[in-house]
Amino acid sequence: MITCPAPLTTSDRVLLGHGGGGRLSGELIQKVFLKRLQDPLLQRLDDQAIFDSPGARLAFTTDSFVVKPLFFPGGDIGSLAVYGTVNDLAMGGAIPRYMSLAMILEEGLPLETLETVTESIARAAERCGVAIVTGDTKVVEHGSGDGLFINTTGIGVVPGTIDLSAANVRPGDVILLSGSLGDHGITIMAKREGIDLECDLESDSAPLDQMVRGMIEAHSGIRCMRDPTRGGLASALNEIAAVAGVSMRLDEARIPIKAPVRGACELLGLDPLYVANEGKLVAIVAPEAADAVLVAMRATELGHDAARIGVVREGRSGLVTISTSLGAERVVDMLSGDQLPRIC
Amino acid sequence: MITCPAPLTTSDRVLLGHGGGGRLSGELIQKVFLKRLQDPLLQRLDDQAIFDSPGARLAFTTDSFVVKPLFFPGGDIGSLAVYGTVNDLAMGGAIPRYMSLAMILEEGLPLETLETVTESIARAAERCGVAIVTGDTKVVEHGSGDGLFINTTGIGVVPGTIDLSAANVRPGDVILLSGSLGDHGITIMAKREGIDLECDLESDSAPLDQMVRGMIEAHSGIRCMRDPTRGGLASALNEIAAVAGVSMRLDEARIPIKAPVRGACELLGLDPLYVANEGKLVAIVAPEAADAVLVAMRATELGHDAARIGVVREGRSGLVTISTSLGAERVVDMLSGDQLPRIC
Repeated sequence: MITCPAPLTTSDRVLLGHGGGGRLSGELIQKVFLKRLQDPLLQRLDDQAIFDSPGARLAFTTDSFVVKPLFFPGGDIGSLAVYGTVNDLAMGGAIPRYMSLAMILEEGLPLETLETVTESIARAAERCGVAIVTGDTKVVEHGSGDGLFINTTGIGVVPGTIDLSAANVRPGDVILLSGSLGDHGITIMAKREGIDLECDLESDSAPLDQMVRGMIEAHSGIRCMRDPTRGGLASALNEIAAVAGVSMRLDEARIPIKAPVRGACELLGLDPLYVANEGKLVAIVAPEAADAVLVAMRATELGHDAARIGVVREGRSGLVTISTSLGAERVVDMLSGDQLPRIC
Repeated sequence: MITCPAPLTTSDRVLLGHGGGGRLSGELIQKVFLKRLQDPLLQRLDDQAIFDSPGARLAFTTDSFVVKPLFFPGGDIGSLAVYGTVNDLAMGGAIPRYMSLAMILEEGLPLETLETVTESIARAAERCGVAIVTGDTKVVEHGSGDGLFINTTGIGVVPGTIDLSAANVRPGDVILLSGSLGDHGITIMAKREGIDLECDLESDSAPLDQMVRGMIEAHSGIRCMRDPTRGGLASALNEIAAVAGVSMRLDEARIPIKAPVRGACELLGLDPLYVANEGKLVAIVAPEAADAVLVAMRATELGHDAARIGVVREGRSGLVTISTSLGAERVVDMLSGDQLPRIC
């Protein structure tokens, strides 16, 4: 559950920040949706719903993709839509199996664009071993959409004993991050704004399910996992800390951030802790599991730069702090407003 | 499978007609999507994918809703999104269980609108006994969307022996329709265009799952069901006839159409066979099942006006004809282009 202090806005209209994955998004979810839609599984606000079907536990997750531009270094809206939903399933420990694909097309979209995106979807689904089994297409008039919006909804199978949930997190646990922060967000922003990063930075958009399988096989002490997309690492950890009623302390020096991301963030006044990722995960694990899980992460291509970045502590419930390289400690709050619209 | 004769358009861009549920939609699905996404379940083009999960058969379906206006006599985008997905599950004989809810909001949408729609969603889900267990919200800039688009994706459980598919249809089968045609489409068009119908016509938007349960209990001889939404009854029957390799003959005098719908269609040059419905189903049943199933349909409020409207015949594969009240017989083809954009 996201805690909502005094509202930052009294707006009676939807703001771009309502889509940012931070505090405003949390307010919208609490005050508009959860107040009216009261299913206990929905109220948990996990990245996926897990329920028992006769003979199996299934995970179920949905995501719409409105990323702008449709094509960017390292990916496109099609592969992003597949990997994003695969990752939401994987964060619950589920093995992705089936996916639906729904598109809202704007009149006038070049068919070639649609074909290219569909090919990318097919390749991404094949890579993840997920079957796209049902679909839908709608068309809206020119000016009522923006090229192409995609919804993917996924079903995965959760092996018997796995129970990953923010509620499992307890003081003493270790926080692991699978790789560098901000690659996706900065790539999108640079492409959109025409900023030349003078380097080969790409989106990290990628499927995390194989890494997760290796981590789960390595040790049973994984409490909870999240892929820090909109709102970044800061928002993901704040959500977990609030649910678990714990505090967290991060070590800035251990958080991998690539030089061009660091440079772009300084230039643009952004904090990489809040920038979106599309191929990274943060895992909270029992202390005795940390070494084994970290080794398993580093053994994969996507987890090569995995690092132990902090610890869970007793104390002020929901508080996330970071000790800087200068020895200071500062609070890492939820993202307020929208750092970068239409990042995914 | 939708048969695709010579293309009606050589456009290299998305047209509104690509969303109309008729021939252009079929071309888009075949030439862009199915060429690249080759899962056998997807290729079946049923309203839902049914697959085996350990211990159960599950149905899975997705639908995006872009209806304009958001509120209309008899419903709104919220209840429509729930019932639409419930109906796609029910058409496969599945009992709806779980639903995801994904919204794409346009910056500036009044929060009150979002609250009203969410309340409608909650009521509709409760009416159908379906749990909304996972969700997503995205926001796009003002001018990049149109108020509110909704995707609902549903999971249902298919009881053991049920196997409804267009491929089951054979000559001699009877075609049953659950009620009057065109109420939804004409209601939306009248509201959007400011036409005064001088009557109380409402959308027929409603959940069909209870009627389906009664029909299945009444007789095991149901071959296939469809809810004739975009593209209307004509397109639904053309699709079934093409898959089954049969022809169909309808009896115009037996097809229930309300007077205001008939009047509006005459005025606007529309054929009610092509107008969208959101609370009707067409069932193809074995001849020995027809009476029992029809009684079960009529026993429900939504099926009060159910009627036997035609028969399946040998002969030219995929051909659907109608005998008019004047004794003539005419071909009822797929919808070409888009009769009415953004009807659902």
